[in-house]
Amino acid sequence: MERPSGRQASQMRKVEFLTDVSKHAEGSCLIKFGDTHVLCLATVEAKVPGWMKNSGRGWVTAEYGMIPRSTSERMDREAARGKQSGRTQEIQRLIGRSLRSVVNLEAMGEHQIRVDCDVIQADGGTRTAAITGGFVALHQAFSHMMTTGMIQTMPINDSVSAISCGIWSRESVLDLDYEEDSSADTDANFVITGKGQLVEIQCTAEKDPFTEEQFMELLNLAKSGCKELSNLQGRALKI
Amino acid sequence: MERPSGRQASQMRKVEFLTDVSKHAEGSCLIKFGDTHVLCLATVEAKVPGWMKNSGRGWVTAEYGMIPRSTSERMDREAARGKQSGRTQEIQRLIGRSLRSVVNLEAMGEHQIRVDCDVIQADGGTRTAAITGGFVALHQAFSHMMTTGMIQTMPINDSVSAISCGIWSRESVLDLDYEEDSSADTDANFVITGKGQLVEIQCTAEKDPFTEEQFMELLNLAKSGCKELSNLQGRALKI
Amino acid sequence: MERPSGRQASQMRKVEFLTDVSKHAEGSCLIKFGDTHVLCLATVEAKVPGWMKNSGRGWVTAEYGMIPRSTSERMDREAARGKQSGRTQEIQRLIGRSLRSVVNLEAMGEHQIRVDCDVIQADGGTRTAAITGGFVALHQAFSHMMTTGMIQTMPINDSVSAISCGIWSRESVLDLDYEEDSSADTDANFVITGKGQLVEIQCTAEKDPFTEEQFMELLNLAKSGCKELSNLQGRALKI
Amino acid sequence: MERPSGRQASQMRKVEFLTDVSKHAEGSCLIKFGDTHVLCLATVEAKVPGWMKNSGRGWVTAEYGMIPRSTSERMDREAARGKQSGRTQEIQRLIGRSLRSVVNLEAMGEHQIRVDCDVIQADGGTRTAAITGGFVALHQAFSHMMTTGMIQTMPINDSVSAISCGIWSRESVLDLDYEEDSSADTDANFVITGKGQLVEIQCTAEKDPFTEEQFMELLNLAKSGCKELSNLQGRALKI
Amino acid sequence: MERPSGRQASQMRKVEFLTDVSKHAEGSCLIKFGDTHVLCLATVEAKVPGWMKNSGRGWVTAEYGMIPRSTSERMDREAARGKQSGRTQEIQRLIGRSLRSVVNLEAMGEHQIRVDCDVIQADGGTRTAAITGGFVALHQAFSHMMTTGMIQTMPINDSVSAISCGIWSRESVLDLDYEEDSSADTDANFVITGKGQLVEIQCTAEKDPFTEEQFMELLNLAKSGCKELSNLQGRALKI
Amino acid sequence: MERPSGRQASQMRKVEFLTDVSKHAEGSCLIKFGDTHVLCLATVEAKVPGWMKNSGRGWVTAEYGMIPRSTSERMDREAARGKQSGRTQEIQRLIGRSLRSVVNLEAMGEHQIRVDCDVIQADGGTRTAAITGGFVALHQAFSHMMTTGMIQTMPINDSVSAISCGIWSRESVLDLDYEEDSSADTDANFVITGKGQLVEIQCTAEKDPFTEEQFMELLNLAKSGCKELSNLQGRALKI
Repeated sequence: MERPSGRQASQMRKVEFLTDVSKHAEGSCLIKFGDTHVLCLATVEAKVPGWMKNSGRGWVTAEYGMIPRSTSERMDREAARGKQSGRTQEIQRLIGRSLRSVVNLEAMGEHQIRVDCDVIQADGGTRTAAITGGFVALHQAFSHMMTTGMIQTMPINDSVSAISCGIWSRESVLDLDYEEDSSADTDANFVITGKGQLVEIQCTAEKDPFTEEQFMELLNLAKSGCKELSNLQGRALKI
Repeated sequence: MERPSGRQASQMRKVEFLTDVSKHAEGSCLIKFGDTHVLCLATVEAKVPGWMKNSGRGWVTAEYGMIPRSTSERMDREAARGKQSGRTQEIQRLIGRSLRSVVNLEAMGEHQIRVDCDVIQADGGTRTAAITGGFVALHQAFSHMMTTGMIQTMPINDSVSAISCGIWSRESVLDLDYEEDSSADTDANFVITGKGQLVEIQCTAEKDPFTEEQFMELLNLAKSGCKELSNLQGRALKI
Repeated sequence: MERPSGRQASQMRKVEFLTDVSKHAEGSCLIKFGDTHVLCLATVEAKVPGWMKNSGRGWVTAEYGMIPRSTSERMDREAARGKQSGRTQEIQRLIGRSLRSVVNLEAMGEHQIRVDCDVIQADGGTRTAAITGGFVALHQAFSHMMTTGMIQTMPINDSVSAISCGIWSRESVLDLDYEEDSSADTDANFVITGKGQLVEIQCTAEKDPFTEEQFMELLNLAKSGCKELSNLQGRALKI
Repeated sequence: MERPSGRQASQMRKVEFLTDVSKHAEGSCLIKFGDTHVLCLATVEAKVPGWMKNSGRGWVTAEYGMIPRSTSERMDREAARGKQSGRTQEIQRLIGRSLRSVVNLEAMGEHQIRVDCDVIQADGGTRTAAITGGFVALHQAFSHMMTTGMIQTMPINDSVSAISCGIWSRESVLDLDYEEDSSADTDANFVITGKGQLVEIQCTAEKDPFTEEQFMELLNLAKSGCKELSNLQGRALKI
Repeated sequence: MERPSGRQASQMRKVEFLTDVSKHAEGSCLIKFGDTHVLCLATVEAKVPGWMKNSGRGWVTAEYGMIPRSTSERMDREAARGKQSGRTQEIQRLIGRSLRSVVNLEAMGEHQIRVDCDVIQADGGTRTAAITGGFVALHQAFSHMMTTGMIQTMPINDSVSAISCGIWSRESVLDLDYEEDSSADTDANFVITGKGQLVEIQCTAEKDPFTEEQFMELLNLAKSGCKELSNLQGRALKI
Repeated sequence: MERPSGRQASQMRKVEFLTDVSKHAEGSCLIKFGDTHVLCLATVEAKVPGWMKNSGRGWVTAEYGMIPRSTSERMDREAARGKQSGRTQEIQRLIGRSLRSVVNLEAMGEHQIRVDCDVIQADGGTRTAAITGGFVALHQAFSHMMTTGMIQTMPINDSVSAISCGIWSRESVLDLDYEEDSSADTDANFVITGKGQLVEIQCTAEKDPFTEEQFMELLNLAKSGCKELSNLQGRALKI
């Protein structure tokens, strides 16, 4: 069965990393996975959260938001509703955890980097795009800290990227767009380092349960996808 | 390296299901995984959420809470803080999704079942205990609906249970207690049906990333654990 | 007219104090007044609220909550609604005030004890049960502080318990259960010390006003009820 | 020992009822107990709360607030803090309950009266002043409803007023002002009808417990105080 | 076309300043513009907001509220709704800004004055009344600071008042009351100092846009109105 | 004195309108005033707010937000803080009012258009950019409604744009950037239609008051600026 976009099962959408897109932020990346566009801006702060004071360690955290009409149907503005949805909180916790997995917090000193991931336009896969683009912004922020003498060595010890997969029309496919995502049987997100190690696996049966074999197909698709993303990250960062 | 509890790597804690523990609820189960005690109470409602009206389908949802001193260090009461944490929302979304995966919503009619999972005492693994005990309370609530003539056939088409695994002291172990959980390298939760199909996989590197081999070990531990839980559920429900 | 439970007008429900019911809390008591079950857990903290710093005195406070399906009709979860009801706040203020009435705050040093009273199952009289069981948990917490050397002398100078009374079917009765409570003309709560002194009286006409004679009948019932509760507290605490 | 104000133990402050003080409200009364000034405005609404629809009955409710500098030390504005304190909620529940005790809700038809009690200046006894002045505003609102033909008969079957008493310097005194209130051993509020029946008793030991004898002294003071208030209410309403 | 009140186009309502109306506040003024009554109470605090600490400068701020039945139709109580409306926030920002425009913050030392403006009765023009009366309360608070030796010189270097104007029935009129305000084409507020300088202009087309000529008419009306208000302020303050 | 940007006193920054920048929205415009970039997305809804039902009229409203690192110093995310600031609410009310001033609400039928203005990068003048770009998005949304047959005639009867002016270094200048804005003596925003009529004037003394002459200079600058903006809007919309 043909995918709505005409892509092959193992084919990602066109991915672009636009860097240096902010006049203000210490690191910035507008990442595009097809029609999904996420603006990732990293902010360096000279202090850590209260519970980390005098620990000698730094912290990396993330926040996530969608502008109301980034989606096909306009969503309520979370600031107006007065609280972030469970989904938003779940996603920003995932982004933060994923980015920290490749950072040596001791080597950061008592600084904090906040990575704001704001979805400008959504077409499926916003959380994985945020992790992938967020890494680029984070890396730039650390470079800025080195340039300005805040730290001496790069606290990043591997790259990290993420991709979604799913079982759509009984077939395992890579990088679901919104149309596929909303009708997929199983939806999975994988966070994988540049060296190929696993950071996070989230695989959810949306309708019927899935089998171990199906899961392994998804894992294999994700590994090849993240390998490609890791290369693109390196090119964007010129490293 | 020996586990703090002295258990074998593949050994679960003692699991107990106490049923009919509520004067009021249509389904009730106090589940104990060692010192983790979760009270699961199912409430049948004769109406569905607004967005489902006139759909002819029912809904199953879950809420999760911890009493403040269920934990070693007292936590703030969420009702007093005025909002549920991201963790709470993430967990209750997971419980609801897991329970719905084995329910035929069409067969429920326009009814809703809410499963409240309140942690009375915590020692690791509260979310997996909540899913496992919540299923028992849910099944009882459906039996109640059949007895009272609200539905004619049981809308449950498989059982579902959940278990945590993790990499602790470089070894893959089943059913982490709090002491292990707080020092584990990798922490995973698996939701698996009675027939052995997968519903949800969440596997997170807390410190270093993990390998595919390690992940497969965790998956195998979880499959054997959930098989045992499924048997215990059947015995508790006398089915 | 016979009471729904068949009890005599001056007869309390069966009252049980289960102590040492928590792996974590410094004091714990699951109190049962018939089908009303309240879990009271006391937490010792090595600091006082900001406004008491450097006062040399300690503080005792209480929080109250009901799990959603503790009642016949499920209530909304207060954490999900984002605020505590007026009723909840009124009750937790009453519990804290009542417990402090028998504590010498100067003798506590700058420590705080929080007593969490969570209603597991409700059948009328949850606030009076919380005070009565909360005292037991509080006493245990102070014993823990003495054992661990945080204080030298017991800061408690009397016991305290509470009971409800009411005018039901034109008769004054002790210890209303839910069925009586919801149809009573007048509803009263009394907080009385072990030595028989009065700490708090709250008496409310739910329908018609009441006379001074009726009030005196309620007060006398409460005095005999609290005397019995005081004895049971002593036995539970082995003092 | 002499009272700070030089009053006799059984002497109330000067009490004034200013009526018709609002251009807009259907009933209005600015009540003054010495330096305590509470503006009570009653609003008639042609509908009842959702849970009362089609019950054929009406509802009376109250809200309470203090302007920030009504007190000696400025308090935070509750609207700015984003929530009403427990004290505020407790008070407005008491006012509403007290006013409803003398109203025949069936005779109101499906209308609601809201009585807003806003403290313009505080010097102790604001809640009892609010009940006493609120009754006058409520009575006027019902008169307005009769005049405009919304109802045919007056739904009020008795008057209601309230007064505080307390044990100050070991003596039972009537109508505490702020200076006495903040140093009293025991603080009590009584709500009593014009015919002398009891509606609500709240008596709280602020420091040491109190005896039954002391309580009876307070009750007797309150009865004489409310008798006088009832006369003043009648004069204000010209009934 | 005649104005509803029968006033001339350039005629203000009767304006009264009642001072020393609070037992507690350091400055107080109940200002009346016809049926619009605003109670302005100034509170002196011996500290500044956190962000101004160690700046050597003081701060003047304002809060605004309406009691619920100050208006023709009762409004919800903001404290009960849990947040201040956009309108309330806009108004209190305007009042604070206007008052600060005539204060030498350096000359205040590190003190803060809060001016609470509570609308007791509303009939149009509450924000301009609040500025005009708030200035009087503020001036008194500074006098109090001088008397008590907190400051040596008066930090106020000019007076400030405010007035509304509008285009009503195609005519430019001064000092709109509620009936005019709700049907005006253009609504303007002017804040002007005693020396005739401009502090704030807000002019809004409610229906059709307005011309520069019309705007100039409004400005001229406002200048004459504020001149009169400035004289009345001087008389109220006896300066 | 030279402006930081080297611009002439009457010279605007380079203004660009990028249209059709959204896959989803019915109208879209990314407006750039130099380094100030605001994404304006218009959403057509087939229903009006509750209070307008059955009025036969439509409604246009606006929401405003800033992504956290749009500014030089990162701001807190309003969704995380749980409420919109007074400034945000003030701005979105201004945008909505300005857009409605050129719309015939009767001609819209019972539809609502929401214009979301999200600041991607800020360098002063975000609210005036939002109005100016928001008009373009709104016009496109109405064109979409005509194309799809929702309405027959264009409900817009004039264009509307906005510009800031201010007194900087004692000189009146057009279109303040952030550096000027933060040190200006007087700050003004003007909303003017394509035909040159005035919709809103807001002029605020940030430090010293201003004179009528100064105000007139600002008004004249604004009129010329809005004339230019109106031309650019026409070109962007090809009308």
